[in-house]
Amino acid sequence: MKIARYEVGGEISYGILDEAEDGSGIELVELSGDPFLTGFDTTGRRTKFQDVRLLAPVIPRSKVVCVGKNYADHIEEMKGETGGDAPKEPLLFLKPNTSVIGPGDAIVRPSISDRVEHEGELALIIGAIAKDVPEDRALEYVFGFTCANDVTARDIQIADGQWARGKGFDTFCPLGPVIETDPDLSDARITTKVNGEIRQDGRTSQLIFSLAKIVAHASQAFTLLPGDVILTGTPAGVGRLEAGDTVEVEIEGLGILRNTVR
Amino acid sequence: MKIARYEVGGEISYGILDEAEDGSGIELVELSGDPFLTGFDTTGRRTKFQDVRLLAPVIPRSKVVCVGKNYADHIEEMKGETGGDAPKEPLLFLKPNTSVIGPGDAIVRPSISDRVEHEGELALIIGAIAKDVPEDRALEYVFGFTCANDVTARDIQIADGQWARGKGFDTFCPLGPVIETDPDLSDARITTKVNGEIRQDGRTSQLIFSLAKIVAHASQAFTLLPGDVILTGTPAGVGRLEAGDTVEVEIEGLGILRNTVR
Repeated sequence: MKIARYEVGGEISYGILDEAEDGSGIELVELSGDPFLTGFDTTGRRTKFQDVRLLAPVIPRSKVVCVGKNYADHIEEMKGETGGDAPKEPLLFLKPNTSVIGPGDAIVRPSISDRVEHEGELALIIGAIAKDVPEDRALEYVFGFTCANDVTARDIQIADGQWARGKGFDTFCPLGPVIETDPDLSDARITTKVNGEIRQDGRTSQLIFSLAKIVAHASQAFTLLPGDVILTGTPAGVGRLEAGDTVEVEIEGLGILRNTVR
Repeated sequence: MKIARYEVGGEISYGILDEAEDGSGIELVELSGDPFLTGFDTTGRRTKFQDVRLLAPVIPRSKVVCVGKNYADHIEEMKGETGGDAPKEPLLFLKPNTSVIGPGDAIVRPSISDRVEHEGELALIIGAIAKDVPEDRALEYVFGFTCANDVTARDIQIADGQWARGKGFDTFCPLGPVIETDPDLSDARITTKVNGEIRQDGRTSQLIFSLAKIVAHASQAFTLLPGDVILTGTPAGVGRLEAGDTVEVEIEGLGILRNTVR
């Protein structure tokens, strides 16, 4: 099932993507609340997909947890910059919810950075309160999946050592386009393109730490709340974004997250 | 003015501390909303201070921003552990809002850490949306001040390198007891006691980066929202907390934040 958060006529809703009965294309079946909080009650209202503006599929009330160093080829390319070998456990850091933007929104390069880079990633959205959950049940706490871009001011990340600022600027966490609740992520391709050219090209089968391991590990530190988001790491090929660029993160089965750069 | 967030009879409110007209002690004048969001309208209801349970003065909707390495003597004591010299700019990191607890609540030592430590700090609470604010106007965006304990699983902080996990466990951000909107912080004493014994003893005049500089710098990275909290760094003397300990952070003019340890 695919679920979108969208705006139409000034109102913000969640809706389930569905074929129109008359075969005229995709419609959104409006839900009465946030599905990971209130479930799947519908209002009965249907809106044509092309008539809405898609928004970030969630603005977390609490946190965006990120995993660093979760693809071997990316760890290799970052040696000497943000440094080090593969960690023994998922390396966690946080982005603030003020960094989240939606599909089509502009990534704004801050004036104090000369080096803003893309990091295409698979994101998961938490659906139930999770604390100290065992790995073999961790995925039960996941509501769904979407594409993310862990945008990074690399110069500031390196200068600070702590990554919160370099990765936490406003607009540095594009999410979308929609939430897929049940994708096949055993070996899904994940690519990042800049102006149509492939820069990052990985597969979810290359993740060092599995999705279940990441959720279990994060829930050991933090109580995860419905609507919290976890970014699961980026494959090799990170690189610069310049004003005017269009950056696209695509994951098989999840669609394309497209943003411009200012 | 002192403002408390409190629970009485199952209801949570903000209130202004005021002398009872009959001289019988302190009362809380209930406010109709969150003062940094809706101002100071009162409901007219007054409750005796001793009849309420104080809560964390705020649960941030967005973020707890923290400043590392902001007292010279603490930088000195941490060399070789979390390392390095005084930074050129305030070093920022984030704690999640799920780590916030109130006065009297228990700090819970996670089973995966052998070394949980106290860091008594001055905290400020943001009162208006702040983005790229100049230093000379930065304090206009501050609603008030309170005491904080930047509780840290030192072993995990060191092992990860990134501080989000070691400093982000549930219960690792005690705040309180109340908000003071207009304290004199030019040279206020800040002490941390464990079981009545002074472990940290500093003065706000020793801050390397001023409160205004911190707010301005943080607002360059993140849009600060009303209710966001900034912890301003800890003086020397950080040390272990064991089960059964009572830890108190006291700042002149702001009161005592007291928590037990489990």
